Amino acid sequence: MEIGFIGLGNMGGPMAANLLKAGHSLTVFDVSKPALQAAVDAGARTAVSPREAARESEVVITMLPAAAHVRAVYLNDDGVLAGVRPGVPLVDSSTIDPATARLIGESAAKQGNPFADAPVSGGTGGAQAGTLTFMVGAETVLFETLRPVLASMGKNMVQCGETGTGQIAKICNNLLLGISMIGVAEAMKLGTSLGIDPNKLAGIINTSTGRCWSADTCNPYPNVLPNAPSSRGYTGGFGADLMLKDLGLAVDAARQVKQPILLGALAQQLYQSMSMQGLGGLDFSAIIKLYSNEDA
Amino acid sequence: MEIGFIGLGNMGGPMAANLLKAGHSLTVFDVSKPALQAAVDAGARTAVSPREAARESEVVITMLPAAAHVRAVYLNDDGVLAGVRPGVPLVDSSTIDPATARLIGESAAKQGNPFADAPVSGGTGGAQAGTLTFMVGAETVLFETLRPVLASMGKNMVQCGETGTGQIAKICNNLLLGISMIGVAEAMKLGTSLGIDPNKLAGIINTSTGRCWSADTCNPYPNVLPNAPSSRGYTGGFGADLMLKDLGLAVDAARQVKQPILLGALAQQLYQSMSMQGLGGLDFSAIIKLYSNEDA
Amino acid sequence: MEIGFIGLGNMGGPMAANLLKAGHSLTVFDVSKPALQAAVDAGARTAVSPREAARESEVVITMLPAAAHVRAVYLNDDGVLAGVRPGVPLVDSSTIDPATARLIGESAAKQGNPFADAPVSGGTGGAQAGTLTFMVGAETVLFETLRPVLASMGKNMVQCGETGTGQIAKICNNLLLGISMIGVAEAMKLGTSLGIDPNKLAGIINTSTGRCWSADTCNPYPNVLPNAPSSRGYTGGFGADLMLKDLGLAVDAARQVKQPILLGALAQQLYQSMSMQGLGGLDFSAIIKLYSNEDA
Amino acid sequence: MEIGFIGLGNMGGPMAANLLKAGHSLTVFDVSKPALQAAVDAGARTAVSPREAARESEVVITMLPAAAHVRAVYLNDDGVLAGVRPGVPLVDSSTIDPATARLIGESAAKQGNPFADAPVSGGTGGAQAGTLTFMVGAETVLFETLRPVLASMGKNMVQCGETGTGQIAKICNNLLLGISMIGVAEAMKLGTSLGIDPNKLAGIINTSTGRCWSADTCNPYPNVLPNAPSSRGYTGGFGADLMLKDLGLAVDAARQVKQPILLGALAQQLYQSMSMQGLGGLDFSAIIKLYSNEDA
Repeated sequence: MEIGFIGLGNMGGPMAANLLKAGHSLTVFDVSKPALQAAVDAGARTAVSPREAARESEVVITMLPAAAHVRAVYLNDDGVLAGVRPGVPLVDSSTIDPATARLIGESAAKQGNPFADAPVSGGTGGAQAGTLTFMVGAETVLFETLRPVLASMGKNMVQCGETGTGQIAKICNNLLLGISMIGVAEAMKLGTSLGIDPNKLAGIINTSTGRCWSADTCNPYPNVLPNAPSSRGYTGGFGADLMLKDLGLAVDAARQVKQPILLGALAQQLYQSMSMQGLGGLDFSAIIKLYSNEDA
Repeated sequence: MEIGFIGLGNMGGPMAANLLKAGHSLTVFDVSKPALQAAVDAGARTAVSPREAARESEVVITMLPAAAHVRAVYLNDDGVLAGVRPGVPLVDSSTIDPATARLIGESAAKQGNPFADAPVSGGTGGAQAGTLTFMVGAETVLFETLRPVLASMGKNMVQCGETGTGQIAKICNNLLLGISMIGVAEAMKLGTSLGIDPNKLAGIINTSTGRCWSADTCNPYPNVLPNAPSSRGYTGGFGADLMLKDLGLAVDAARQVKQPILLGALAQQLYQSMSMQGLGGLDFSAIIKLYSNEDA
Repeated sequence: MEIGFIGLGNMGGPMAANLLKAGHSLTVFDVSKPALQAAVDAGARTAVSPREAARESEVVITMLPAAAHVRAVYLNDDGVLAGVRPGVPLVDSSTIDPATARLIGESAAKQGNPFADAPVSGGTGGAQAGTLTFMVGAETVLFETLRPVLASMGKNMVQCGETGTGQIAKICNNLLLGISMIGVAEAMKLGTSLGIDPNKLAGIINTSTGRCWSADTCNPYPNVLPNAPSSRGYTGGFGADLMLKDLGLAVDAARQVKQPILLGALAQQLYQSMSMQGLGGLDFSAIIKLYSNEDA
Repeated sequence: MEIGFIGLGNMGGPMAANLLKAGHSLTVFDVSKPALQAAVDAGARTAVSPREAARESEVVITMLPAAAHVRAVYLNDDGVLAGVRPGVPLVDSSTIDPATARLIGESAAKQGNPFADAPVSGGTGGAQAGTLTFMVGAETVLFETLRPVLASMGKNMVQCGETGTGQIAKICNNLLLGISMIGVAEAMKLGTSLGIDPNKLAGIINTSTGRCWSADTCNPYPNVLPNAPSSRGYTGGFGADLMLKDLGLAVDAARQVKQPILLGALAQQLYQSMSMQGLGGLDFSAIIKLYSNEDA
């Protein structure tokens, strides 16, 4: 397929590469020259604007840092909507607020382009390995149209509902994730301070009602899980500053619907404390460092 | 075996009944006459004091509401330690603070009785069905001695370490559980307020990094899981006031070792809000009601 | 003086009226016809746009609901900056984020107009009585130029520093206010639940280290202070939804500078709980209702 | 008067010295030999037990670290109640939970001794200068009897109500104090991070609705108030570990009456974080250090 791809960062770059590997033809755009060059080296053509990247494409995919970029890339005079042909489906895999996703979706619908929000989980590792999960806000026909394209970049495609629900699903999952990681950190630190062996405690939690991904797959206590970021200096996982961004989206969305999220708001501030202390680049499980006097 | 059993409440009663069913001989004590009568009807002998219940026993098991009762039952003039023969193992399955467990253990050791703290999870349902999990603070020889007895009342026996670690394991697991349940409540309420279908959202969480027992087995949003307490008016699970008690133990234990537990302390106050509103008798997943203007 | 005044709501309306009473000549703009008519009745001329309101004025004052309105009123094609003569000072008394205030200030400076952010405290009562406090982000020359104009609407003019510091001062004061009111609510409810007379307790707090405006001037416990909103059904003070808005500004500003505000973020969520329960129109001291099973 | 005085620590020592200076005759008891010797040097007689200290006294005063000590000193076989003559009034100035105060009061009443709980504020400085504030749980006759004695040690005697209300008043005041200090820390750090001068900000807060003792008398931001602990390295004020103890009493008391205190519980954990980091000996205003990457 002819695919327009905009946004070639840490996530978008490997996603585009996987599309090329799968045999698709890509026209790409990014503001970074080196990122563009890497895509060209992998077989892509470049465009001078999102509009041009969209012009000849049969599907357009965007992967951008924040809502402001998404608005600009779709709605500006040289943006996607100004260039794309009617009927061509559009997919935004950025993680942004649901209201902006709906806004883009409405603007696209007015000119006859179906739009899906499809944020991902799996991180840069999943982007490179092509094992991302896509949470897709799209009606069934659009979802089925997009599925084979997304399958070149991920292995799970979940249909969440109408436009915006992909973002809602991601925000809510990560709200829970950010909370449960801190819960595991508190439980592990309290237990070991009281005198239980961390491996014993983790083993019990993982077979009891406290079990969760943050405990059995990404336990923040060092050397409980050999392959977890906590056992390699909290490198290479899901960065605390990204969690902080997602909790910010949750707090903002909660404000719009007057829905209190008490633990969520406190969790946001704790990751902000990490960031203030210069730890924002570590895996978010390093939140456990807030609970120690020395390095955990 | 000849077993002394003290404490025949909602948990202790069915536990004693399962021991009798397994063919053991029981001498029981409780301050409640009806509870004693029920045990007699099931085949037990009664004693007039913990001391007498312990006198002829080959193992003594206690299941009591709080630390004050445990201290009295073991240490008073008519208590277990005053009656039990040297060498007889003692097991306390109450949920109490680790420091009291260690105190009882030291007093027992002085007179030659090995002591294990062995709090349970599984609730009254597990007590009746004989499917409890025992978290056992005991050295290996004692643990292996007790295992066949405990096997009449439960199906999982986890060795946690030295005396007190059973309590630590339970407190820390339930600290995490109390937090993660609120996390699920916030995520489910935020998501549905924003417009996603609750079943869709639960499905995504349960296959993503937010997955946890509170979401996939006891989801607080009504009718997401047909067999969860939330789908039957929040009846019949783990009472919010029991969660409140366990979080109180966690906050107290944290104070003793100067270990902050920020989300845990806030979670305690939220269950206390439930209790203030008269909802303490509901399953603890009814915490989601704090996040609604109407009944969830 | 010839004054352009834009924004005639609950605050701006009476502020404009006080300027007219003081003998100034006003050209006003608002999107609300009734608000414009009230200003005309009080002696003002009307304009069809912010640009026109600014064109003949010697000073321009704006009083708007939120940052989006401020950006539009100053920066749009028919906005203040498009109409105002060089050198004319501009004053924005809206409560908005400091970054937007700085942005407007920079845009104004480029075309030779000094700009001050001057948010107020004192509420609608202070606006009507002409007793507002202005927190002014302005260098000394500009501050002294504006002082006599502001004196027609308020009685305290505080110079806070450069552009944006007026907003910072207001946001930080209200952050503390929002927290301390909840602190007073918790202290008063805990004390009376434990059995002390509320008047005794308030008397002690007000002469001790707990003393604060929220306790000695606006105590949330009913009938402790006869003139406080709590003694007249929580009507007529500073609305909880306005406090919620200001705490939202604080949380947003904190995020921009990676400065954690843990109690502040939790306070925001508690006022959001009030709002969810339909109590957002009451005085913010009604937060004490969250701490009761019945109406406080 | 003949006064029995038990507990000669950092607070009790100077309080006893002030009673001696005022011409009273003291019989003292403490477990510390050096503390006893200091009292002897100042003119006191010593006793070998609380019972003996109470035997000849016309009033008995106790100043002890915690409830366990108070129970032992009053109720043990060699305690105050075993020695004191009927009708002699008893005063406990320790800071403890209200329930223990009531328990002691009831035991004393049974044998004809009126009992008042009279915790103090003012710290070691106030104890030395004789300027303490006494919060007294006592009926009017007892209060008037004690007033002249207390006047030798303090300058404010506040009658709070029946037995236990002195403790309630102190706990609730300090609950609010612990919260408002963190509120001031968050407001000052947010404001200065955003770019306002700390002295400007403090000046505005202190004349606005955010005003409170923690801002205008003990501001945690260094060098805003020359005489505050924050301007001398956080030495010499009210220690963070003492605030932590008082918040612990508040959380415990709240649990007993099922009264949630959300900000209070979070505040407790934040002071516990200070303590974990080895800062518990500093003035409690050093909580602001949690909000900085470097030393504040």
